[in-house]
Amino acid sequence: MSTPVLADSVRLTADGVEILDRRVFPEQRVWVHCASVEDVARAIEDMVTQSSGPYFAALWGMVLAARSAASLGPAEARARLEAAGERLVATRRTNNHLRKAVHLVLSHVDGQTGDELVAAATRGAEAGNERYRSRSAALGRHAVDLLPDKGTVLTHCWADLYLVELVRAAQNAGKDLAFVCTETRPYLQGARLTAETLAEMGVDTTVITDGMGAAVLSGGTVDALVTAADRVTMDGHVVNKIGTLGLAVAATAFGVPFHAMVQAPDRLAPTAADVPIEYRDGTEVLDRPGIRGHYPAFDITPPRFVTTVVTDRGPFSPLRLADYYREDS
Amino acid sequence: MSTPVLADSVRLTADGVEILDRRVFPEQRVWVHCASVEDVARAIEDMVTQSSGPYFAALWGMVLAARSAASLGPAEARARLEAAGERLVATRRTNNHLRKAVHLVLSHVDGQTGDELVAAATRGAEAGNERYRSRSAALGRHAVDLLPDKGTVLTHCWADLYLVELVRAAQNAGKDLAFVCTETRPYLQGARLTAETLAEMGVDTTVITDGMGAAVLSGGTVDALVTAADRVTMDGHVVNKIGTLGLAVAATAFGVPFHAMVQAPDRLAPTAADVPIEYRDGTEVLDRPGIRGHYPAFDITPPRFVTTVVTDRGPFSPLRLADYYREDS
Repeated sequence: MSTPVLADSVRLTADGVEILDRRVFPEQRVWVHCASVEDVARAIEDMVTQSSGPYFAALWGMVLAARSAASLGPAEARARLEAAGERLVATRRTNNHLRKAVHLVLSHVDGQTGDELVAAATRGAEAGNERYRSRSAALGRHAVDLLPDKGTVLTHCWADLYLVELVRAAQNAGKDLAFVCTETRPYLQGARLTAETLAEMGVDTTVITDGMGAAVLSGGTVDALVTAADRVTMDGHVVNKIGTLGLAVAATAFGVPFHAMVQAPDRLAPTAADVPIEYRDGTEVLDRPGIRGHYPAFDITPPRFVTTVVTDRGPFSPLRLADYYREDS
Repeated sequence: MSTPVLADSVRLTADGVEILDRRVFPEQRVWVHCASVEDVARAIEDMVTQSSGPYFAALWGMVLAARSAASLGPAEARARLEAAGERLVATRRTNNHLRKAVHLVLSHVDGQTGDELVAAATRGAEAGNERYRSRSAALGRHAVDLLPDKGTVLTHCWADLYLVELVRAAQNAGKDLAFVCTETRPYLQGARLTAETLAEMGVDTTVITDGMGAAVLSGGTVDALVTAADRVTMDGHVVNKIGTLGLAVAATAFGVPFHAMVQAPDRLAPTAADVPIEYRDGTEVLDRPGIRGHYPAFDITPPRFVTTVVTDRGPFSPLRLADYYREDS
């Protein structure tokens, strides 16, 4: 089973962080070299990487911060790392992976300096890297359990490692899943990242424009709508790439289940009102005189349009997400 | 009040038919010269013009056929015109304007030859031209009656003369309507034709990607979804540009009325099953090795997601469309 390139597209090297430029993939395979935390932050802001990419970029970016703080005393080094973390978290307001990545690395740093500081930060980043991958694999297995032995899945945007692990789990389970993916304007993550990765993994792949989802869902050929979620609030609202809401509403209208994949619901977001929606520059949608472009990067799907929230701990009803944390208490 | 260029974009000249190329508008304003019926048919097939454009192209194309048949006897001339009509009707299977245009011109030809044949065909085409425009104007006035004095309308694709007349009627009535239009992939008719024409007419215009419609509809800022329809079946199904269904389903879910504009419901299409859906080449959506593109050009919105069918004779419930023809019987 081949590993698609996007499954390992943010890498720590001796002199920086290398990030595969998802804006031009797959037409070009360009790696952006980030020598500093600021470079990493700008790469995230400029959408060089997105989805889970910023999480890994923040992990490795914090290692760069530790390297740059290696000559400082403990308090100054800590302040440098905290400032770096704030810079990274501020890059994409709706993505709470960034906060988790920063906190994880900071939690491994406890007064060290010099090489020990770098080693501690690196351990934290590696722990985050491994944990994210193992949780994604668990999530993928749980998601596959909800799908038929042979069928068609509609997906939107780019579910990244969740999608890769879902496909791996399906292939391991001998399930024969075809995928339909929306192109996902304006960045075309579906047409570029999702379709290319599915094809790399040997999956039967069809691309549609974003407006075709309802027609496909009404046609009786799709067994499930499956997307990632950038966040799921504790009251069951799914925050994901703009366009998810329309597909979820159509899926509900035509009797197709919608499974939203997220490692865990967000305890810091009890309700949808607790999630700030990022508005990007309207010129990214249309840049022509006399006409305005509008670009909310995410939308919020209420729980009545969500069948299942699939997590690393299994599937949950969107109305029973507190159960996810029951075993922690 | 200025007349937007797209309101008069298919013109008969002394040596052919000139068609504004909507594929490159507004970035370029190129007119395609069609010297023959075959040129006109290919222009329609190649999407040089669309929406109401093929209707006007078919009208004037039939005049070209008459000119080319001017030296023939009555029977041969009739056969030449009928063959031309068949060629034109076959260009876009879902668009029944073509059939109407051809029939109208043929109904004005009755055994003439030479210059009289050309004059008769021209009278038929001119009658079609004037009738289409006056009916669109009536439709526009009826549509505006359904809209608030001040509000926001979401539209999809390019409603052509219906939209132009709706905006004219709103301006005449002193109504202040802002428009949000979907970009309408893959041809971007919304971003190009609709947005540019609205801006030409001085309307406050915002463009969104096709996936943003549900989010905009859920936000409480849109007063109505208004689109054209390529056909409306007698049982209330709205056949229109792919993407309409998803918007209509979302509008219904979020309590926004959907008004579909069509001059008249189609008596030749009692049910949705009577309308063949045109599938275009998937490479027009995506052309990359190992990945399939899927391109249904239209979708079908069931009457439960349609509030009103607005015609030249006024608004009708999608479940009461037979009433449209009551005054004819």
